[in-house]
Amino acid sequence: MYDVAIIGGGPAGLSAGIYAARANLKTVIVERGLYGGQMQNTLDIENYPGFENIEGPQLSEHMYNQALKVGVEWKYGDVTSVELEGQPKLLKFGDEVLQAKSVIIASGATPRPLGVPGEAEFTGRGLSYCATCDGALYKGADVAVVGGGDSAIKEALLLTRYASTVTVIHRRDALRATGILQNRAFANSKIRFKWDSVVERVEGDTRVNGVLIRNVKDNSNEVLAVKGVFIYVGVDPVTDFLAGSKVLDDEGYIPTGFDMATSIPGVFAAGDVRATSIRQIISAASEGATAALHAYDFVESLSN
Amino acid sequence: MYDVAIIGGGPAGLSAGIYAARANLKTVIVERGLYGGQMQNTLDIENYPGFENIEGPQLSEHMYNQALKVGVEWKYGDVTSVELEGQPKLLKFGDEVLQAKSVIIASGATPRPLGVPGEAEFTGRGLSYCATCDGALYKGADVAVVGGGDSAIKEALLLTRYASTVTVIHRRDALRATGILQNRAFANSKIRFKWDSVVERVEGDTRVNGVLIRNVKDNSNEVLAVKGVFIYVGVDPVTDFLAGSKVLDDEGYIPTGFDMATSIPGVFAAGDVRATSIRQIISAASEGATAALHAYDFVESLSN
Repeated sequence: MYDVAIIGGGPAGLSAGIYAARANLKTVIVERGLYGGQMQNTLDIENYPGFENIEGPQLSEHMYNQALKVGVEWKYGDVTSVELEGQPKLLKFGDEVLQAKSVIIASGATPRPLGVPGEAEFTGRGLSYCATCDGALYKGADVAVVGGGDSAIKEALLLTRYASTVTVIHRRDALRATGILQNRAFANSKIRFKWDSVVERVEGDTRVNGVLIRNVKDNSNEVLAVKGVFIYVGVDPVTDFLAGSKVLDDEGYIPTGFDMATSIPGVFAAGDVRATSIRQIISAASEGATAALHAYDFVESLSN
Repeated sequence: MYDVAIIGGGPAGLSAGIYAARANLKTVIVERGLYGGQMQNTLDIENYPGFENIEGPQLSEHMYNQALKVGVEWKYGDVTSVELEGQPKLLKFGDEVLQAKSVIIASGATPRPLGVPGEAEFTGRGLSYCATCDGALYKGADVAVVGGGDSAIKEALLLTRYASTVTVIHRRDALRATGILQNRAFANSKIRFKWDSVVERVEGDTRVNGVLIRNVKDNSNEVLAVKGVFIYVGVDPVTDFLAGSKVLDDEGYIPTGFDMATSIPGVFAAGDVRATSIRQIISAASEGATAALHAYDFVESLSN
């Protein structure tokens, strides 16, 4: 029996683990992938206070080691269902059922697909959701990035280290990305823009060789010849294992109060899975810490 | 004219500065002391995710350099009054009046005095609010720590590096400190406890030589012979420059929403000065980042 079971080992889950274990709670993190979550797919992190510049995998490793050092147990597993309302709470993954007095859901979010023909077919064959992972495969090539937010522009900038040209395809006529990133993108001669444009189809034979785009203003079509296309059009919460649970809102996110408590006593949420999250590493880490401190109060209240 | 003026250069203010400047806002931090705020008085930080163990002054310097590097302007000054309701907002310090479109209040909190005879008289002469600063002066001495929370126990543990004995005087019969800190304290042979006890008077001649304590259960008195006494009984928000402002609650803290917005448009609060703050470096940094992102939205809305 654990005091706290944490679902997800990104910055929210790792921080929750650090705080929970330091409070002497018997703590486990269940994660289906590598520690660090989306940080693993981020090359340069420049906005986590304390590090002027650190690579995502390195910050992931710092937090992971810190969690293990204070006594967090790490389990590899894909949580498929949960029973949260009773006591203890149950987490099922593989053949295992794990029991815990409290649960912190820090399962994060994953890249949203475009939902166009060719997308599934060419994923891993020229189509990617992670320039950090796959960018180096496109040395000297022409590539496209779809999206206009921070992630899209950061990854477009990264891709200029490898590619000959990077065309940013954005449905609006202005970027959503932070000013400093916009400035860098506009100043980079390898980056060009297709404004007011959406991808209609990803084209190729065995691998991507182009994208069909449509201008949303005049409805004209154009094929952009590219060897790679990188998708950054948003993220979806990872809450499939909670299907039907009353902790979810209509969009599949988890609303909480300032104390990170959900609508079920002893169940907390932190990080990108939380409704109104600002999707920053620093906020995920803070929310994890907050959730753990309140999980501690909850666990203490059970024994009194 | 600044886009954002940040009052206070602790982790909340520095993080707000990093986020605001990265968003291309013209950003200034006004601080009356050293960068880093209360972090400067913390020797070992072990719960800031990303650093297994870092000294407070070192983490302060990391964040300060990071803020300067992205373009934050740093001004030394003690803000004495503000005009927050109009546009632009005005901050007065010394002979200077600074104008800004938005303000982030991150002025933090300071140690609460005990309020007993001898306290003011012996401050700096055996009585201290900062073991990290003054502990090394008490090599081989018997000292006392007043309080039972995280700060009290951390500093008691620190003091055992220097002092012969450290007596923790606590008004209750159990500590409030985190479990891991409690365990370390109970395992440390130099630390002893005076439970259910309060300090009635700090005694001495030119310097402290004892504290008069009273047992709250049986009202018995006792003089504890110590050369040093360290006070950790809580903190008060630094909001004197806001006296009478509608952003304050009855206890002098600043309530906000999830977006760190106060009751005055364009005025935000972050860190220990905020009502319901969990008083952690990680949460202060997160709140600063959140405040800056919403200050950005506010500044953008002014120009539209």
